[in-house]
Amino acid sequence: MTQVENRQFRLAARPVGLPKASDWNYVKEPARQPEDGEVLVAVEYLSLDPAMRGWMNEGKSYIAPVKLGDVMRAGGVGKVLESKAAGFTAGDFVSGSLGVQAYATCKARDLIKIDPRLAPLPVYLNVLGMTGMTAYFGLLEVGEPKEGETVVVSGAAGAVGATVGQIAKIKGCRVVGIAGGAEKCAFLNNELGFDAAIDYKAGDIRKALKEACPNGIDVYFDNVGGEILDACLALINLRARIVICGAISQYNNTTPIKGPSNYLSLLVNRARMQGMVVFDYADRYGLAAREMAGWMAAGKLKGKEDIVEGLESFPETLLKLFSGENFGKLVLKVT
Amino acid sequence: MTQVENRQFRLAARPVGLPKASDWNYVKEPARQPEDGEVLVAVEYLSLDPAMRGWMNEGKSYIAPVKLGDVMRAGGVGKVLESKAAGFTAGDFVSGSLGVQAYATCKARDLIKIDPRLAPLPVYLNVLGMTGMTAYFGLLEVGEPKEGETVVVSGAAGAVGATVGQIAKIKGCRVVGIAGGAEKCAFLNNELGFDAAIDYKAGDIRKALKEACPNGIDVYFDNVGGEILDACLALINLRARIVICGAISQYNNTTPIKGPSNYLSLLVNRARMQGMVVFDYADRYGLAAREMAGWMAAGKLKGKEDIVEGLESFPETLLKLFSGENFGKLVLKVT
Repeated sequence: MTQVENRQFRLAARPVGLPKASDWNYVKEPARQPEDGEVLVAVEYLSLDPAMRGWMNEGKSYIAPVKLGDVMRAGGVGKVLESKAAGFTAGDFVSGSLGVQAYATCKARDLIKIDPRLAPLPVYLNVLGMTGMTAYFGLLEVGEPKEGETVVVSGAAGAVGATVGQIAKIKGCRVVGIAGGAEKCAFLNNELGFDAAIDYKAGDIRKALKEACPNGIDVYFDNVGGEILDACLALINLRARIVICGAISQYNNTTPIKGPSNYLSLLVNRARMQGMVVFDYADRYGLAAREMAGWMAAGKLKGKEDIVEGLESFPETLLKLFSGENFGKLVLKVT
Repeated sequence: MTQVENRQFRLAARPVGLPKASDWNYVKEPARQPEDGEVLVAVEYLSLDPAMRGWMNEGKSYIAPVKLGDVMRAGGVGKVLESKAAGFTAGDFVSGSLGVQAYATCKARDLIKIDPRLAPLPVYLNVLGMTGMTAYFGLLEVGEPKEGETVVVSGAAGAVGATVGQIAKIKGCRVVGIAGGAEKCAFLNNELGFDAAIDYKAGDIRKALKEACPNGIDVYFDNVGGEILDACLALINLRARIVICGAISQYNNTTPIKGPSNYLSLLVNRARMQGMVVFDYADRYGLAAREMAGWMAAGKLKGKEDIVEGLESFPETLLKLFSGENFGKLVLKVT
């Protein structure tokens, strides 16, 4: 029997605007012993995602809100310390919804075994994890890009955006990324092979988009909402597809969400705007991960992780997503 | 050679907000003689449509704007007075883009021959015309309703809306119409067989919608935009389809269009919002009209026309669309 002291961030209050320190309770207590069918996992890395902000709100969404008093939900990877489940043994590495804590006691059937010899653990939270799956299925199944089309992605230096852009390049599209700051834009252009990158902090986004998309926009993959969504709507082509994956510019609003004023461009252009949630594609994660791993091995797809150390930093580290400070997939290293 | 004096409404200015009398020039002059391939048509009925407001604006849309000084674009039906085109003879009845005028000299190849023995002329502007085609293709091709689903339509006592609702009933859906005023709602319930009708002027639209749609909304056919679009977005089901056909609440705005604040419901529900323009389905108008005529003959589909007499009343009559005064398809009788 493994006795370890757990450290957890529990949701203490539903945030108004940006989450603040008092929205969390930091709790130390012995980790719960696994029961039949369960394993005890030492959490090594946690995935920090914009979607977490939504899970903190009350009310109906694509997934139940985190209850007040519960450990904050988060995807993670870790090592099995003790197993009471068939097929799992101490030393196995696993990925799943582990929560913002140092140790997770969870049902083995909710976990996936991963192999750290094939890729470093954080990659299983990025390109080979939910992030990569979101990019893969959102772009290919909802965006339906065709060779030669122009694909625009916002939050392009973020985890999902960077992967979306690279997959679009693999599919033969002209790819334009929107990101904040010269450094991120240089990364998109020089490291990831985007055709153009727009620094939304550097001036008139509409003008820059128009220049970067001389043939208009066929697919817009939206991670941010707000003004950038409107700017893209103004430039869409006939039968364009807009993938609504997120709206990070709006998640911490204390005023109503800004709806896209230019939505009638959908009518004029017989275009569609469609939402996606990655869980719908769970039965095909394996296939997608194999294809993505192949692209990584061939040097066509790169992942970039922004790793911050220390579980205790969780409340401040999470905020990097909303200030745009993270550069690549934001990962919290627990130890 | 037929010499007739024409009366025309020409666009004099691009309206700001609601069109006003000074936005038009009323001109009398001899009708132009038809040249080879042309016919001279005595216009009998004109179709007045919300889309006309958009055609008066400058700028890119799904169709070129009406130029300043040009006769206002309008669909119409009339009788050929003189023909210089093979296959057309005086006395033929035709439908096409005739313009807001008493006589139209136009290319015969842009006209469709119609038979007034099969249906009264105004029906060719309503259920058997662009209005009916818009409802038919917008609902069936973009909305994709399935038996047992809940279909909500706004502008439901208007020309497109009333037809959408009836086709949805034919397809076995639960149909909820949104219209302004008790009389229109009674018409939807009692004459057209809708399952429920909501008077948007009578109070809390969200509450009324929730009551009328106990199983949520699977298809929302939007003719109005604004608050009603947001109220529907709040109630859509998983994989719902929103057809963006128009946004009459926003056409005369002098402030920016109100984008749908609740658009992230598309994400949560993996739903789509898609624009449509009827012209895309031109190659199948004939098939659709035959099916619609069959439903009319079987008593399953009723058209209601709101006929106003006198070409001269055009500027005021058009405004009935925006005040919601029209009840059924608004038609201007020229004579």
